[in-house]
Amino acid sequence: MSKTMKALVKHHAGPGARLEQVTKPEPQAGEVLVKVSAAAICGTDVHIYKWDEWSAGRIKPPLVFGHEFCGHVVELGPGVDDIATGTRVTAEGHFVCNVCEFCRTGRGHICRDVEIIGVDTAGCFAEYVRVPRSNIWVLDDDVPDNVAAIHDPYGNAVHSVLIDDIVGKTALVTGCGPIGLASIAIAKLAGATRIYASDINPYRLDLATKMGADVVFNVTEEEMVSTVLAETDNLGVDVLLEMSGHPTAINDGLRALKNGGWVSLLGITPDKKVSVDLNDGVIFKGASVYGINGRLMYKTWYQMQALLRAGLDLTPMITHNFIMDEFEQAFELAASGNSGKIILYP
Amino acid sequence: MSKTMKALVKHHAGPGARLEQVTKPEPQAGEVLVKVSAAAICGTDVHIYKWDEWSAGRIKPPLVFGHEFCGHVVELGPGVDDIATGTRVTAEGHFVCNVCEFCRTGRGHICRDVEIIGVDTAGCFAEYVRVPRSNIWVLDDDVPDNVAAIHDPYGNAVHSVLIDDIVGKTALVTGCGPIGLASIAIAKLAGATRIYASDINPYRLDLATKMGADVVFNVTEEEMVSTVLAETDNLGVDVLLEMSGHPTAINDGLRALKNGGWVSLLGITPDKKVSVDLNDGVIFKGASVYGINGRLMYKTWYQMQALLRAGLDLTPMITHNFIMDEFEQAFELAASGNSGKIILYP
Amino acid sequence: MSKTMKALVKHHAGPGARLEQVTKPEPQAGEVLVKVSAAAICGTDVHIYKWDEWSAGRIKPPLVFGHEFCGHVVELGPGVDDIATGTRVTAEGHFVCNVCEFCRTGRGHICRDVEIIGVDTAGCFAEYVRVPRSNIWVLDDDVPDNVAAIHDPYGNAVHSVLIDDIVGKTALVTGCGPIGLASIAIAKLAGATRIYASDINPYRLDLATKMGADVVFNVTEEEMVSTVLAETDNLGVDVLLEMSGHPTAINDGLRALKNGGWVSLLGITPDKKVSVDLNDGVIFKGASVYGINGRLMYKTWYQMQALLRAGLDLTPMITHNFIMDEFEQAFELAASGNSGKIILYP
Amino acid sequence: MSKTMKALVKHHAGPGARLEQVTKPEPQAGEVLVKVSAAAICGTDVHIYKWDEWSAGRIKPPLVFGHEFCGHVVELGPGVDDIATGTRVTAEGHFVCNVCEFCRTGRGHICRDVEIIGVDTAGCFAEYVRVPRSNIWVLDDDVPDNVAAIHDPYGNAVHSVLIDDIVGKTALVTGCGPIGLASIAIAKLAGATRIYASDINPYRLDLATKMGADVVFNVTEEEMVSTVLAETDNLGVDVLLEMSGHPTAINDGLRALKNGGWVSLLGITPDKKVSVDLNDGVIFKGASVYGINGRLMYKTWYQMQALLRAGLDLTPMITHNFIMDEFEQAFELAASGNSGKIILYP
Repeated sequence: MSKTMKALVKHHAGPGARLEQVTKPEPQAGEVLVKVSAAAICGTDVHIYKWDEWSAGRIKPPLVFGHEFCGHVVELGPGVDDIATGTRVTAEGHFVCNVCEFCRTGRGHICRDVEIIGVDTAGCFAEYVRVPRSNIWVLDDDVPDNVAAIHDPYGNAVHSVLIDDIVGKTALVTGCGPIGLASIAIAKLAGATRIYASDINPYRLDLATKMGADVVFNVTEEEMVSTVLAETDNLGVDVLLEMSGHPTAINDGLRALKNGGWVSLLGITPDKKVSVDLNDGVIFKGASVYGINGRLMYKTWYQMQALLRAGLDLTPMITHNFIMDEFEQAFELAASGNSGKIILYP
Repeated sequence: MSKTMKALVKHHAGPGARLEQVTKPEPQAGEVLVKVSAAAICGTDVHIYKWDEWSAGRIKPPLVFGHEFCGHVVELGPGVDDIATGTRVTAEGHFVCNVCEFCRTGRGHICRDVEIIGVDTAGCFAEYVRVPRSNIWVLDDDVPDNVAAIHDPYGNAVHSVLIDDIVGKTALVTGCGPIGLASIAIAKLAGATRIYASDINPYRLDLATKMGADVVFNVTEEEMVSTVLAETDNLGVDVLLEMSGHPTAINDGLRALKNGGWVSLLGITPDKKVSVDLNDGVIFKGASVYGINGRLMYKTWYQMQALLRAGLDLTPMITHNFIMDEFEQAFELAASGNSGKIILYP
Repeated sequence: MSKTMKALVKHHAGPGARLEQVTKPEPQAGEVLVKVSAAAICGTDVHIYKWDEWSAGRIKPPLVFGHEFCGHVVELGPGVDDIATGTRVTAEGHFVCNVCEFCRTGRGHICRDVEIIGVDTAGCFAEYVRVPRSNIWVLDDDVPDNVAAIHDPYGNAVHSVLIDDIVGKTALVTGCGPIGLASIAIAKLAGATRIYASDINPYRLDLATKMGADVVFNVTEEEMVSTVLAETDNLGVDVLLEMSGHPTAINDGLRALKNGGWVSLLGITPDKKVSVDLNDGVIFKGASVYGINGRLMYKTWYQMQALLRAGLDLTPMITHNFIMDEFEQAFELAASGNSGKIILYP
Repeated sequence: MSKTMKALVKHHAGPGARLEQVTKPEPQAGEVLVKVSAAAICGTDVHIYKWDEWSAGRIKPPLVFGHEFCGHVVELGPGVDDIATGTRVTAEGHFVCNVCEFCRTGRGHICRDVEIIGVDTAGCFAEYVRVPRSNIWVLDDDVPDNVAAIHDPYGNAVHSVLIDDIVGKTALVTGCGPIGLASIAIAKLAGATRIYASDINPYRLDLATKMGADVVFNVTEEEMVSTVLAETDNLGVDVLLEMSGHPTAINDGLRALKNGGWVSLLGITPDKKVSVDLNDGVIFKGASVYGINGRLMYKTWYQMQALLRAGLDLTPMITHNFIMDEFEQAFELAASGNSGKIILYP
């Protein structure tokens, strides 16, 4: 086989990226090499591409980026003997230490010494990617490549929705990016009764409806809180899935929350701090608020597999496909917000 | 019996209060009349006494205030036949509707139509107080009057500490007012391994030590976060009990929290909103944050009874006693912060 | 209005029952009178009708029996002012003390001093029935009478299925009586991936399929345990919903259970004791086993309402309708086992 | 170093054991070699020594047995680089596959492919023992050797007691073998209010008292159930910790359990099946019953460490010490039942 491969490289500390021939990785002890079939663009990838403040502080160019993908195992590193080459897989992108308290108690997602693929180590916008065997997830045959490639955000959504009771509950999803969109379908499948969704982008609200939202709010034009309260006997929704990181969404979401309700906080606020009404929004309500980081390793993954087997359909939120050569178009589209998930084929 | 009684009355919309002879209450259907043996001053009472902004918006003078007390049942209203006069009691001060979803599911503490004794209805700074039978809590004989009188804040503390796992955990209590102080002793009794406590008042930090805190921080003088991290292998504490409502305490508490840790938020922030680092403090940590309102009706009360039976000692935090005629002295002391709980004897 | 009404009376300590004119009940303080629209026959009613050993020990004739029904409020007892006559309702049939520890902590279903309608007090196989206001459940308009009449067993099923995680789980329902049948549909709606069901009656297994079971076993003819294991990578099902009370079903169900799985035990064994393999069935598996008694008062009822709003369809399990005059036919059919729920119209 | 070591060997398929010189083990990839400082005798070891039916079916002589121990790491196998030789350690004795669903979700204790040290592989009644690095638990310096050596049963007890709420609860421990004895002290430290304990052996009941039991029952002489009920307002205890596996203890324990109570089942019944009153004991009570297998890997271990740091004292239950040469005496004593834990020094 060739010693090099095509890869999308953040080549310098600044905007943009370059398709380059780079050295093909070799799997180390405990690792496998995966030939990438399909990858997907995450908001984080757009940040890296555009080179925002966070990227400037975290990314060390040159770096092959990208962390959402599926593919086939093509080579086994030393000591790996429990998976066959040819197996179709995706992977958990948090590479963890396996020895800290968190890793040893089924909570590797908050490992104290984590590395993230495509951020801290070479990623998947490439023909091949190197992954620890223990991070590999074997896919059911009937999961299509585009769904297989978005297991990372899909897992965030499963983690967010299933962290507390959702069956028979009303829910409000603030922020209809990919994780919010997946959350809608997951909550529906898990027996949520009525789902409200909000965003500022009509394209995404349309996708929210396609994923199963009962009511959508374009909060640039419509009053959300009073409508939700009016529809819920002035009690509010049982569950808030906060996927936007926007201060207004956080506070309005909490205003629309029922006493005793619960909240998954996943959206990262752009500023370090956010001004929140904890008194009325959390304390007097007796609410429970859960910070959501990644996916439970690997409880969430078994849930993801099970939900797909139960018939979960994520395809409406996958809206565009590009070959990797067209990456500039793909990233511009992703940055515009007028897309669901975008798949890149290497 | 006399038709009037002595009571401490917030007589006008402004600072201060007056001892007056007022009409003695008569128990209505489903209520009992309690002769007050001992009452206690809450921070809320100080706000009412001093007439802050919150009081001005909520209290309708004239009002007998006070909501922490114990006493004896002296009269039964119509329809009450399951408690004897002479029974020594205290009471849950949230009078709830009993018909809303919250009341019907064991969550009366977040009833949608609650009235609070001494705030919305006549309180306990008086010789007699009228209470719904269902709010009455019968005391064990060996609970002294001063402990009996502070069951309201004691219950807040129990609710805060026992809402999630505490055994074998390290905890940080930010804010050593009475609820913080009680939390320390409760956490110790429930098997917490090491308890850190912070305040800005040396008097209260001294009480914290007496209640069982292992390490106390005067945050006006000492660095708390780095010390806690240094003592915990840079991991932080398992549990944060936020009792201050102070923005710095909230953020520093979250900085000192371990990944996967949990938080009880009880302290009310003086401003409606507070600026919080939800990204690093909650989301990336995968933390769980619980808003604490009142006491579970009545799960918390059974826990309170059980903990006292198990040997919980709250007396170190009860520092002063006054007869009600000395109320001015008592309230000035309470306002100074240089006290634990202050008991008033009518 | 007439002072008497038609009612089905267990008139003597022996088999059978009689349609009689009896005194129409009058609602007492805190009660309402409900005009029955539809009632349903429970297995317990068949026991009372046939007069088995349990009935002989518990029932004191003459007694109007029956405990599953819906109807309209037609009269309010003293002190009831928060419900309008004409309201369409069903009711929780456990009349509880409201003062014991269980009642005061949201667990009235295990009240230490419970009375059951139609067993300990006059029931609903009658034109009118008297019910405490607090037991009344107001129905959504679009719930049909036959579904409204079976809320009691429906609630048992909801309690059984939602006591632990069901979303994304595989489940085995042993015993396809009405509660088992309802459990199948509830588990499906709540996101269970694959549901196995067993019984010895082909009629009921057919209903199980109609309610959504993926695989049914007639255990008189087919090997259940090995098939379930073969289908689940030799791991077993995540959840066992034991609705039969049959010793073989209990043990086979436990054999088919996955390590770490959970079990709802609802079926009552005919003999006081049952021989169970706790070692392999529970202990080595690290299983959790929940005893299911009645319905959570009233958490389960809110869940029942929510699931119907989410689209739960219970109608396939309601197979027969009779006017009350045909009660002998109805009870013979019920006793035969060749029916789902049977509705009686007074 | 010598190539051989002294070890206690089950040398043939029959009663007894022999002290022999055997080949000293060499740590394989991912393993360490531990020099044993102290070992402890478990009931399982007595079964192996006496050669009961279970042993005959499971043990393949010759086998070095024993699974409770502490010692120092003296050699690192290939690939182990994160622990220093000289480190004082004990170990989890379940060697698990690390790849099954259970292992990947923090539930290695129910791994589908487990090997148990001293049962399936060479054990610790020897100068040296070979252990996977991931099973090693580093001890705090102030944990004495005898306590360090009994972490295996101590962990069973922690798993049993902390699986549900114990603070403020009353508990009944049926069976005062080592795990029962440890459970008493753990429950006390975790805030249990009152602990009842039962056994048929006065020696062990005396130890139960020393470990903190408030009331002990010699059930060959005293009525347990009625006494417990009389002391608990006829409600029963909140928690049953079943450590005996005896049918009478199981049923009496369930009779003494409060409605809504919870049960840890750890004691293995000698016969495959046991006759239990599930109706009255579990179902009508709405009880929760947890099967306890091993220790959570490794959540329980962190709890064990924390409880010792919080002051848990297990030393009263460690009653005898022998050098390994005196193994016959030690096993006879263990078989007699008139001991707590017995420590063997190699």
